[in-house]
Amino acid sequence: MVSDGHGASLQSGKSSQPGKFITLEGTEGVGKTTNLEFIQSYLRAKGVPLCVTREPGGTPLAEQVRELLLAKRDETVDETAELLLIFAARAQHLNQVIQPALARGEWVLSDRFTDATYAYQGAGRGLSCEVIATLEQLVQGELRPDLTIVLDIDVATGLARASQRAALDRFELEAVEFFEAVRQGYQARVTANPDRYRVVDAGQDLSAVQSDLKLVLDQLLP
Amino acid sequence: MVSDGHGASLQSGKSSQPGKFITLEGTEGVGKTTNLEFIQSYLRAKGVPLCVTREPGGTPLAEQVRELLLAKRDETVDETAELLLIFAARAQHLNQVIQPALARGEWVLSDRFTDATYAYQGAGRGLSCEVIATLEQLVQGELRPDLTIVLDIDVATGLARASQRAALDRFELEAVEFFEAVRQGYQARVTANPDRYRVVDAGQDLSAVQSDLKLVLDQLLP
Repeated sequence: MVSDGHGASLQSGKSSQPGKFITLEGTEGVGKTTNLEFIQSYLRAKGVPLCVTREPGGTPLAEQVRELLLAKRDETVDETAELLLIFAARAQHLNQVIQPALARGEWVLSDRFTDATYAYQGAGRGLSCEVIATLEQLVQGELRPDLTIVLDIDVATGLARASQRAALDRFELEAVEFFEAVRQGYQARVTANPDRYRVVDAGQDLSAVQSDLKLVLDQLLP
Repeated sequence: MVSDGHGASLQSGKSSQPGKFITLEGTEGVGKTTNLEFIQSYLRAKGVPLCVTREPGGTPLAEQVRELLLAKRDETVDETAELLLIFAARAQHLNQVIQPALARGEWVLSDRFTDATYAYQGAGRGLSCEVIATLEQLVQGELRPDLTIVLDIDVATGLARASQRAALDRFELEAVEFFEAVRQGYQARVTANPDRYRVVDAGQDLSAVQSDLKLVLDQLLP
């Protein structure tokens, strides 16, 4: 089941970027890795020149920042420090990977982007959306994804799936309430700007999820 | 020789902080390490409870960010990414070290702080002072040093001194023009807010520099 809030069509003809910028979002256990691979295969099979990347990360420096962010620590991590590390990695990623790929006419598919910051650091940690928006503007200027796919699942089911992994990182160790807030954070983003988002029900069978993903991607393909 | 632009007295009675916050600044080769040790010894001998720290760094996470900043890389480091990493480390340092020490009534002596960001990233790299000021406000709120000592030396002499060290980091490898701009950046900070700064001529003999440092510190001591 795919929903976009009010049935608007994706703005596939309106982007000023030569390539399309697609981001994939969702809380823990939504099947982001599996579905990212599916999206990648589907677009490549359609002949789309594709740069697949992730956040935080995507360049050697940004991946080092990712390691700092995910590491479990004795030290309490200040929430503003966490937010600034995320945007530092993003600035590097945009400058070195995303913008050059779009300029070459490639499509970019990123496992998470700034919506994750609004959801995790904003809704989850309670940091001000105005502060996040200020940093977004500083780092991205006017650049926003052409399409953001939100894989949505109820938090209990997602966490049960995620708990089957070997080791949990510093974010995955948060409490259920945190992930409930993160999920609501994503929903608030979709509600505020439905044109850019497609929500896919990740609680369905994988074949149904991927059928929905095809429908979403077909809307963006020429 | 000590100068403060217009001879105003230091605001030793005006701080709302229980402890005093002193920062030491300067371009390469001004003798910051030697003079930091001198200041530390002098204040400890006067019975001042003292927390000595440095930027970027001062906590395990912030020191890891420092390593990322100083490492020489094949990858071009985006200037905004560099700026955000510095403020991320600063947020962590303030939250974990500086503010707790001041709250305990200690004095804090930091080898570099936000003036270095205005000088190196602002004047040196050409990043906007408004952006730096926005991040300063986000991370520090109203907290500013009670006293900033700027060790000043002509750039050629400083670089000749610094070149005698074993290995240069990513900043020390910059060109002379960069350090000229950094020095002017510090001078602009002093001119704009002379009450908070004392400039010490670091081109003098070490004994004369330290005699000047004593005069500066004596103004702040009870």
